[in-house]
Amino acid sequence: MEENIYNNTYSLLKLIREKKPLVHHITNYVTINDCANIVLAIGASPIMADAVEEVEEIVSLASALVINMGTLSKEHVEAMLVAGKKANELGIPVILDPVGVGATAFRKKGAEKIIKEVKLAVIRGNMSEIKSISGISVKSKGIDASERDIIQNDNLEYGKDISEELALKLNCVIAITGVVDIISGEGKTVFIDKGHKMLSTVTGTGCMCTSLIGAYCAVSRSYFEAAIAGILTMDLAGEKAYKNLKTIDEGSGSFKMKLMDSIFNFNHLLKNIILR
Amino acid sequence: MEENIYNNTYSLLKLIREKKPLVHHITNYVTINDCANIVLAIGASPIMADAVEEVEEIVSLASALVINMGTLSKEHVEAMLVAGKKANELGIPVILDPVGVGATAFRKKGAEKIIKEVKLAVIRGNMSEIKSISGISVKSKGIDASERDIIQNDNLEYGKDISEELALKLNCVIAITGVVDIISGEGKTVFIDKGHKMLSTVTGTGCMCTSLIGAYCAVSRSYFEAAIAGILTMDLAGEKAYKNLKTIDEGSGSFKMKLMDSIFNFNHLLKNIILR
Amino acid sequence: MEENIYNNTYSLLKLIREKKPLVHHITNYVTINDCANIVLAIGASPIMADAVEEVEEIVSLASALVINMGTLSKEHVEAMLVAGKKANELGIPVILDPVGVGATAFRKKGAEKIIKEVKLAVIRGNMSEIKSISGISVKSKGIDASERDIIQNDNLEYGKDISEELALKLNCVIAITGVVDIISGEGKTVFIDKGHKMLSTVTGTGCMCTSLIGAYCAVSRSYFEAAIAGILTMDLAGEKAYKNLKTIDEGSGSFKMKLMDSIFNFNHLLKNIILR
Repeated sequence: MEENIYNNTYSLLKLIREKKPLVHHITNYVTINDCANIVLAIGASPIMADAVEEVEEIVSLASALVINMGTLSKEHVEAMLVAGKKANELGIPVILDPVGVGATAFRKKGAEKIIKEVKLAVIRGNMSEIKSISGISVKSKGIDASERDIIQNDNLEYGKDISEELALKLNCVIAITGVVDIISGEGKTVFIDKGHKMLSTVTGTGCMCTSLIGAYCAVSRSYFEAAIAGILTMDLAGEKAYKNLKTIDEGSGSFKMKLMDSIFNFNHLLKNIILR
Repeated sequence: MEENIYNNTYSLLKLIREKKPLVHHITNYVTINDCANIVLAIGASPIMADAVEEVEEIVSLASALVINMGTLSKEHVEAMLVAGKKANELGIPVILDPVGVGATAFRKKGAEKIIKEVKLAVIRGNMSEIKSISGISVKSKGIDASERDIIQNDNLEYGKDISEELALKLNCVIAITGVVDIISGEGKTVFIDKGHKMLSTVTGTGCMCTSLIGAYCAVSRSYFEAAIAGILTMDLAGEKAYKNLKTIDEGSGSFKMKLMDSIFNFNHLLKNIILR
Repeated sequence: MEENIYNNTYSLLKLIREKKPLVHHITNYVTINDCANIVLAIGASPIMADAVEEVEEIVSLASALVINMGTLSKEHVEAMLVAGKKANELGIPVILDPVGVGATAFRKKGAEKIIKEVKLAVIRGNMSEIKSISGISVKSKGIDASERDIIQNDNLEYGKDISEELALKLNCVIAITGVVDIISGEGKTVFIDKGHKMLSTVTGTGCMCTSLIGAYCAVSRSYFEAAIAGILTMDLAGEKAYKNLKTIDEGSGSFKMKLMDSIFNFNHLLKNIILR
């Protein structure tokens, strides 16, 4: 199983670097630069555009559409609906990151509208966000998962039930990231127990993970495998970036840079793991 | 006195890392990513949200509200007023960064409206900005303090008069940052002669300083001490980041990363200074 | 010829660092932070402001106006027109970056309106963007130049014809950046065969190049020389940043930081080349 995940990811990575697919983002303005750079680092081509006047044309050029609710506005919701429907029409996968969906009624309604009107390929969120989308009441503290909601080894079954049920209900891939990651779809569930806690010290590592999933979806027939590949990439790059911290003076600033470097060099990293 | 400042800051820093308070920002889209990352680096939790539909709900989850006028729009002013009033109702401290307030009538009116309708805990700006808010005519060149307005050792008394008068008038803490920093509030004034000129080679170090003050306000009963702590943190981290530049090839790019690292490791930095 | 370019650039660089001119940007929110930081790194002073209520006042304080269509909205177009006309009135140079103009009708119309109503000093784009502005049909894949459109040594004459014709038609400087860069204006054309392909692995290096041109235009009587200086600066800094990559673990994250460092230290870099 695990070997398969690594080999599949490697095959998809090669495809990304060969095809350089265009990944359209309608995303928040906090982490948009990092999302564009991580898409370039993995080998794909980002385009960030949210004017409702042009999103249909933009998404028509693209191979995947990432919609991220980080700094939602009513204009954003409108653009997401227009672009999302066009993507559906053209068979382009749509990946949703429901940032902070549990925090406000405005986000809940926005997410509901999107989920109702757009067929999604993948939803990636933390446990609080996925629970909120499942209709399970959540006490959200902003955009992070409540601490008791972070998936760890002692609540895997609980998380698995939620992700499988939602995957079935929405007929899409559900990815819950946490200390352990859960990916459900195509009648299967995979756990990934990788990554590093330093990833939570940099804003936007969740958004960037969703962008990576977008890049993988752009070249994969299976969105389940694409979601696994995106999460595995972020997890392993996070571990590598942490290992590359050298002095006690380095912290979250250096880690962020080295995370980008590790994605840029991810083909070597992954090949070494596979050959090991 | 000085010893007190260091010890108070250290106590507040420990509180931040223990409580991980949520700091809501309505801020400019130039430095928003850096503000989110510095809030994470100091140990608090950032949430950036400016849609008027949701800012009341968001600020209700938070322990401090930072409003920054860097890229002001009329929608921003509205969201700031709504969130600010809600924060007042709930007793959540509001910190204002009046970026470039002297540059345009639009910013002056925006700031006036905010100051009139929202009770502020702290205003942090450069000398030109604070003078502008005091109603003293300023010849602003954009968002930086005019050169003759930067507080240095030869115009401390002049700055002190202005900050004390404004602190009294608005009944809030006034922090003027420059070569020397002046903080007035609770009937007292403190000067801080720390920091490094490299801080002015990176955009947003002022904004980031305000965000740090927000994080400290979230855990402090005294906003005066919180403002001092935020500024001291930025100053000392700036000195440390400069010291950590290693080769002549390093410049403002490396400095910015090392500044973030120094905030991330600020507990060690401060402890070493206190124990020295 | 080449010697002249280096010496002219060095003279302009000294002027920037002496005068610290204010460069007003109305730009996209993907790379806005990097554009502000690169303007600081070269020695000028950035101000990013796009509210239509204040752009006239802001541009009146500035020595150059950079308008960048990266994330165009109808509000942006309006602000660009208002600021551009005011800049024209005051004799302040306006530099246009028509990001992705070939990708959508919305961008084409926006660019047409701007070009019709505002007198431009410089337009900098990739080959696809400049062709699109010239009215030559382009098959755009997002915001990057189509691969067959990247100017290399085998299609220089083709690019030269297009840039010279457009420069004549619009009576402004046209700069096409690619593997080889072409700058046409004042009846002359210059090719620059510098730079490094790593520049294309970081988002916004095109935008940042345009911002540098803005800083040079702010101090130069010749916008042709200013465009050359901006492009030469980016090219040489890109080469230097690549040379400064040290381990195989470094990638696009480290490169971006070192690019900023190289601009910050560009006076030393350029002096060494001139003295060599």
